[in-house]
Amino acid sequence: MTLSTTARSTLGRNRDRAATDSAELHAVLDEGRVCHLGFVRDGAPVVLPTAYGRDGDTLYLHGSSGARYLAGDELPCCVTVTHLDGIVHARAVMHFSMNYRSAVVHGVARKVTDPHARWHALRTIVEHLTPGAWEHARHPDAKELAATVVFALDLTEASVKRRSGPPSDDDADVSADLAWAGVVPVSTVTGIPEPAPDLPGHRALPPHLG
Amino acid sequence: MTLSTTARSTLGRNRDRAATDSAELHAVLDEGRVCHLGFVRDGAPVVLPTAYGRDGDTLYLHGSSGARYLAGDELPCCVTVTHLDGIVHARAVMHFSMNYRSAVVHGVARKVTDPHARWHALRTIVEHLTPGAWEHARHPDAKELAATVVFALDLTEASVKRRSGPPSDDDADVSADLAWAGVVPVSTVTGIPEPAPDLPGHRALPPHLG
Repeated sequence: MTLSTTARSTLGRNRDRAATDSAELHAVLDEGRVCHLGFVRDGAPVVLPTAYGRDGDTLYLHGSSGARYLAGDELPCCVTVTHLDGIVHARAVMHFSMNYRSAVVHGVARKVTDPHARWHALRTIVEHLTPGAWEHARHPDAKELAATVVFALDLTEASVKRRSGPPSDDDADVSADLAWAGVVPVSTVTGIPEPAPDLPGHRALPPHLG
Repeated sequence: MTLSTTARSTLGRNRDRAATDSAELHAVLDEGRVCHLGFVRDGAPVVLPTAYGRDGDTLYLHGSSGARYLAGDELPCCVTVTHLDGIVHARAVMHFSMNYRSAVVHGVARKVTDPHARWHALRTIVEHLTPGAWEHARHPDAKELAATVVFALDLTEASVKRRSGPPSDDDADVSADLAWAGVVPVSTVTGIPEPAPDLPGHRALPPHLG
C-alpha cells in the first residue's frame, strides 16, 4: 500500500529521505517500544512518551482513565516513533547529521469502547511491548479494565523518513582532506533479564524471554 | 535549582515518579541525542525528531531556513527527551511497564539572530551530538549560516519523570506465583566507527572518537 500524500504527511525538506510504502511505516513502528504522542492542550503543544501497539493499519494507545488528556472521546494527535542508527561525522560541522528512521502519524485517535475491541487493543499493546507476555501473565480484571482507557488511531495519514550511509560532504572539503569522516553506529540492545527480588527461585525464565 | 511547578509542568499521574531538581533535568537532556519537538500547525499537533544542545538553562534547536515550522520569530513548543532503560515484566499484564527517564520542556522558543549567539548555539548543538567535533571539523561559512535558523528555549518550565526497579505487582499475584517477573534492561550503545568510503587511508580516528 502506498502511504498518503496529504499536505502534512508530505515532507517539505529532504524529500529524498521519504519512504512511500506502508511496509516501511509498519517496520518502523513495529521495531519501536516508545512513541512520542503529541496533542494540543489549552492551545499549546504537549509531547509525552508512551507505549503503543499496532495491528494492521491501526495504532493503539492506552492510559489511565484518570489522565486528563485522555478524557475525551477523540484526541487529535501526532504519534512519532524514531530510531537513531548512527551519528554522522562530516568534514564540516554543518554537515554533521544522524542516521535514523522515523515515522510520523497524524490523525484523530478515537476512544475504543467495545469490550472485545478494548481487550484486543490491550493485548496488542502488551504483545508489542514483549511478545508472548499476554498468554504468560494474568489477564486484566474488571477493576483494571475500568481504570484503563484505550484509543485507536488509523495509520492512513503518515510519513516515514530515514537517512543512512556516510556523510554528504562538499566535494571541496573531501578533496582538502579536512577531517575524519564516517558514521558511529548507534543501536538499542537488551541485557540479561533481572528477576524481581520477590520472585521464587524455582521460577525459570519463560520461553518467550529465552 | 528547583524545577518549576506550573500546572502543565506538574505531573497529573504517578507523581512519585517526578524529579524536582534541575540537575536531573540537565542529566536527562545531556544524555540524549534526539529530542521530539512538538508544535501546533493549523491547529493540529506535529511531533518531529531533531537534534538539540544545552548550555546552562537554555536548550538550542536548529534547522533549515526553508523549514516551514521555523519560519516565525517564535515557536510555542514542547520538547521531550526520553531514555528507555528497561521492559518491566509483571505477574499481570496490566502491570507491565517500562523503566525510563524523560524530560518534558514547555515554552516559546525564540529565534536567535545575533551572530555571536548563533555561532555559540551551533557550537553547542554540534558538541552535544559529538563532543570534540566542533574544533575538529570545518566551521560554518557564510552560505551555511544563511541556510540555518537557530532557536533558543528556556528550561524554566519543565518536568522530569522516571521509573526504575522491579514490577509493582498486586500482593495476591505475587503470593500466587503467577508468572515470571522482572526487568529486561534496555540500553543504547555505540559501535565501531565506520570511516566514509572516500576517507583517505592515512586519516586515523581522531582522539575525541578514540
